[in-house]
Amino acid sequence: MKALLLIAHGSRREASNEEVRALARTLADQVGDGFGTVVPAFLELAEPNISSGVAECIRQGATDIHAIPYFLAAGRHVAHDIPEELGQAGREHPEVRISVSPYLGQHPMITQLLLGLAQQKQSAIEAA
Amino acid sequence: MKALLLIAHGSRREASNEEVRALARTLADQVGDGFGTVVPAFLELAEPNISSGVAECIRQGATDIHAIPYFLAAGRHVAHDIPEELGQAGREHPEVRISVSPYLGQHPMITQLLLGLAQQKQSAIEAA
Repeated sequence: MKALLLIAHGSRREASNEEVRALARTLADQVGDGFGTVVPAFLELAEPNISSGVAECIRQGATDIHAIPYFLAAGRHVAHDIPEELGQAGREHPEVRISVSPYLGQHPMITQLLLGLAQQKQSAIEAA
Repeated sequence: MKALLLIAHGSRREASNEEVRALARTLADQVGDGFGTVVPAFLELAEPNISSGVAECIRQGATDIHAIPYFLAAGRHVAHDIPEELGQAGREHPEVRISVSPYLGQHPMITQLLLGLAQQKQSAIEAA
């Protein structure tokens, strides 16, 4: 079974982490038969961490885990921390295949989404 | 003149900041006549900061500044720091109008982009 592991940064603000968990549930509803589960994981500040997220995928029956870094720019988290933690999880679970997609910011449609936001109604900033 | 201010987090990894600046240049090429300039700004760890980014928009002739938070989740940066720094810039420059769009993560197409990444060819994680 293939699992999708959605890896976000994690926030001190629990509403923000909950937003990522809700997004994982939305993806699970829409991802179709190719994936048996979608599990959220956080690099820091929230649970589950990447190791626990991988373990949860396996607990649900995954043998093939596709990680998506929910990040916009290739800072040290994307360039270093996520591959390292996934590599560590791979050593702990040699029976599963773990792979990683480009991070979200590399998606060619991001520019179009920003142009859409530029045209959208905006909120005035209160200078008072 | 309307300016687009693309606000990113900023990284210790300069290649990541350069990626945001390159994205601002791409947006400038594509945003059309509605906007006279696109300026990148960073909340921390990189230059220009938000105050300097607003000043740069004004230096280029902007009277109306549309900020787009280049963030995926409403952590404290989006919920608190960006509105506060934009409000401060508004007090320093009462002659310009500053407004802010939803942050990128609120764009309804994000889910579709993630589903696209899930289907894409992935890189194996080296467990060795």
